[in-house]
Amino acid sequence: MFQQISILAPGLLGASLAQAVRKHGVADKISVWARRPEARLQLQEAAWCDSVFSAPQEACREAELTIVCTPVERIPELVGAIRDSLPPGAIVTDVGSVKSLICRKSHHLIGDKGRFIGSHPMAGSEKSGMEHARDDLFVRRPCFVTPLEESDPEAAERVVAFWRALEADVMTMNPEEHDEIVAHISHLPHVIASTLCSFLGLKDSSWIKFGGAGLRDTTRVAAGNTEMWREILQQNRSEILRALRAYQDELHGFQTALANEDYYLARHFLDRGKAYRDKL
Amino acid sequence: MFQQISILAPGLLGASLAQAVRKHGVADKISVWARRPEARLQLQEAAWCDSVFSAPQEACREAELTIVCTPVERIPELVGAIRDSLPPGAIVTDVGSVKSLICRKSHHLIGDKGRFIGSHPMAGSEKSGMEHARDDLFVRRPCFVTPLEESDPEAAERVVAFWRALEADVMTMNPEEHDEIVAHISHLPHVIASTLCSFLGLKDSSWIKFGGAGLRDTTRVAAGNTEMWREILQQNRSEILRALRAYQDELHGFQTALANEDYYLARHFLDRGKAYRDKL
Repeated sequence: MFQQISILAPGLLGASLAQAVRKHGVADKISVWARRPEARLQLQEAAWCDSVFSAPQEACREAELTIVCTPVERIPELVGAIRDSLPPGAIVTDVGSVKSLICRKSHHLIGDKGRFIGSHPMAGSEKSGMEHARDDLFVRRPCFVTPLEESDPEAAERVVAFWRALEADVMTMNPEEHDEIVAHISHLPHVIASTLCSFLGLKDSSWIKFGGAGLRDTTRVAAGNTEMWREILQQNRSEILRALRAYQDELHGFQTALANEDYYLARHFLDRGKAYRDKL
Repeated sequence: MFQQISILAPGLLGASLAQAVRKHGVADKISVWARRPEARLQLQEAAWCDSVFSAPQEACREAELTIVCTPVERIPELVGAIRDSLPPGAIVTDVGSVKSLICRKSHHLIGDKGRFIGSHPMAGSEKSGMEHARDDLFVRRPCFVTPLEESDPEAAERVVAFWRALEADVMTMNPEEHDEIVAHISHLPHVIASTLCSFLGLKDSSWIKFGGAGLRDTTRVAAGNTEMWREILQQNRSEILRALRAYQDELHGFQTALANEDYYLARHFLDRGKAYRDKL
């Protein structure tokens, strides 16, 4: 499918990608750039990595497809750094969980030196790092591909075909629509879980031992990497604020029902919530 | 430990209790009252039930310990209904997840005909019904025992010993303190999960297919029985309102940080949240 694929920054997502590419025979050769020397030493022994580089420009010099797996804030700057090293017709994608800023900046920066098409595989967990990588991380998981109107259609098709080959459920939409959706179904739940935990952390510390399975599940995502989440919140700020304000209206509506002893209305919130959750 | 234990209303908790009592040899005889004839037919074949009754008064006539496992709203009325049938010195407890109203009403209703001591084992799940019962449901799970100041100390000790025999982690406190704690660590998370779901249910219905493991975990409890939760919210209304208002201040503080692009402060919320979650 590809002669050479290059993966920049093999954390949980990047290393899982390389393993999945190898397993599915999606590329003849996999080259990897890792910033940290200790990671490069590890990579020399990995069966899913054919060559390791200490400069990103070297890793993607012969790659038809380069996948940028750094934290979201670094993606456009790395695209700018590699563009002059890309072979003719190269495609560049990423795995960032926010798309609008990344896609517009990267498309602009890459210019006529390559074709940037954004991706966002909804995989991963509160764990991070190469050591948690799995070759089936993307199987039957949603994966957004977010070309711009001005993007090259053939490049978008190849990126879609790439994720399909890893057995992801691919959906194509524009980056703004993507950001609105993830603000609601991923970033808002994260903010809610984190603030619930930060709130409970202010209370009597002996209460923590009474936390049951319900509290543990409700707050699991709050254990995620906080710097990564700060970047996501920053990149998707306006959509998250919109979702957050609207959710607070919902929560306040429930509070008013309870304050007014309107249990018919309170039950109605619970019923609507259950109906949604049962569909999930 | 007890000659006879009576269980009123064998749902998930009641049936699990009976199975755990049998397994640990806590009582020689287990009698059960079930309201529905089909449940009584099922009970006749259960190894953990020695006699089945169609009237609660009959089930507890010779029971040293009666455990009321109905929904919370029904508990005091059932205590009132059985009090004249209790043998001398009988102890009555319950498994309701709200304690203040239940303990004060039940203590008053039972008068000198028995001794009521409230319990709340933090076990169970979004599933309900006898068919999900498990004899290890209470093992290493927190269980509150909530005597009043005027309660008989010997009765409280026997109820504590009962839950210890089922391997629960027992804590004794007054019902008001209990209700404040569960408002924060159980009822507030439930309200948040339910309103998040009711809010997302108002959005584009195609978004649901992008919901990942994070959203599913964060909202799992919203699938619980809504009528049971309406009763819990009603019974613990004032403590839940207090927790809900304080949580909204926290959420609003986070929103303001994000609106002001104060990412240092936003990150501080995330860090405090992670610190709490990592301890859970």
